[in-house]
Amino acid sequence: MTQSLKKPQIVDAKVVAKSRLFTIEQLDLVFSNGAERQYERMKGNNRGAVMVVPVHQGKLLLAQEYAAGTHNYEIGFPKGLIDEGETPEQAANRELQEEIGFGAGKLTLLKELSLVPSYFSSKMQVYIAEDLYESELEGDEPEPIEVVAWELNDWRKLINTPNFTESRSVSALFLAMEYLSHP
Amino acid sequence: MTQSLKKPQIVDAKVVAKSRLFTIEQLDLVFSNGAERQYERMKGNNRGAVMVVPVHQGKLLLAQEYAAGTHNYEIGFPKGLIDEGETPEQAANRELQEEIGFGAGKLTLLKELSLVPSYFSSKMQVYIAEDLYESELEGDEPEPIEVVAWELNDWRKLINTPNFTESRSVSALFLAMEYLSHP
Repeated sequence: MTQSLKKPQIVDAKVVAKSRLFTIEQLDLVFSNGAERQYERMKGNNRGAVMVVPVHQGKLLLAQEYAAGTHNYEIGFPKGLIDEGETPEQAANRELQEEIGFGAGKLTLLKELSLVPSYFSSKMQVYIAEDLYESELEGDEPEPIEVVAWELNDWRKLINTPNFTESRSVSALFLAMEYLSHP
Repeated sequence: MTQSLKKPQIVDAKVVAKSRLFTIEQLDLVFSNGAERQYERMKGNNRGAVMVVPVHQGKLLLAQEYAAGTHNYEIGFPKGLIDEGETPEQAANRELQEEIGFGAGKLTLLKELSLVPSYFSSKMQVYIAEDLYESELEGDEPEPIEVVAWELNDWRKLINTPNFTESRSVSALFLAMEYLSHP
């Protein structure tokens, strides 16, 4: 292990801002070379999250949903937090039924993704869902989610669709296509 | 345009928490079907960001850097915020010189990514950098960044590397490989 890979020491950590959803922590760090820095990061809620790429009858199924950050409707794969007592697979299957009205007979883990590790600790398990069957669960969405069915063969066009931009969905699309072409 | 694509109305917006780096805003929303919800989002700083996939002599060049969110060293592509007065290309070329000690003769935009549009407004331009030349700029990093050179032909192994998990870097890798195989 090289010098630069010795983790900095956290000499102080305190919450500097807090809202209903977010807790921001300030860290006083001393790096192994003596450099001192003050960093901020989001304190995680320790709940994992899942994203699912559903494949059904030669189509990818996506959800079109309002996103407050951009104040726009965005297309992406079904996703959500893992509830207490759920396994990641159970959460994936629940989110599928809530967001697109299908359950999955087969879920395969593609990769664990992180989200800006400089600021967040949260991880997200990405699955591909196959052997789908119709099954609906009531979610807490304020309005019905629009399901977008996209031809698998046209997946490269999805990459260039203006409201398909979320990095986790883009990663999930490529991971799923890798899986499908090298199963 | 369907009913569900009529954007909700923001009837109130106020800052509920603020730190040096982050500002959290609470929105009172009324959806087109009458449903009312309170959402939180991060107020952006309106500075864009860039990520760059540098390709040099058959290798991908990555940066290994401390990430406070996970308190770990993570591998990813050079990235950073766009400074005032800079174009995205200038920012990309500056970050390359600061983080891996190369400038780029050729920068090609691959895609604009977003980061959890439910919570953030920020966008990131992803470039591939070719025709690299040695050139170093001093950054504000607390310790030297470890440069990791990765054989292009082994790019699939990178996907399975445990500390290569950031969704933006994973997306950038796939976008670059698409570009290189279908130029």
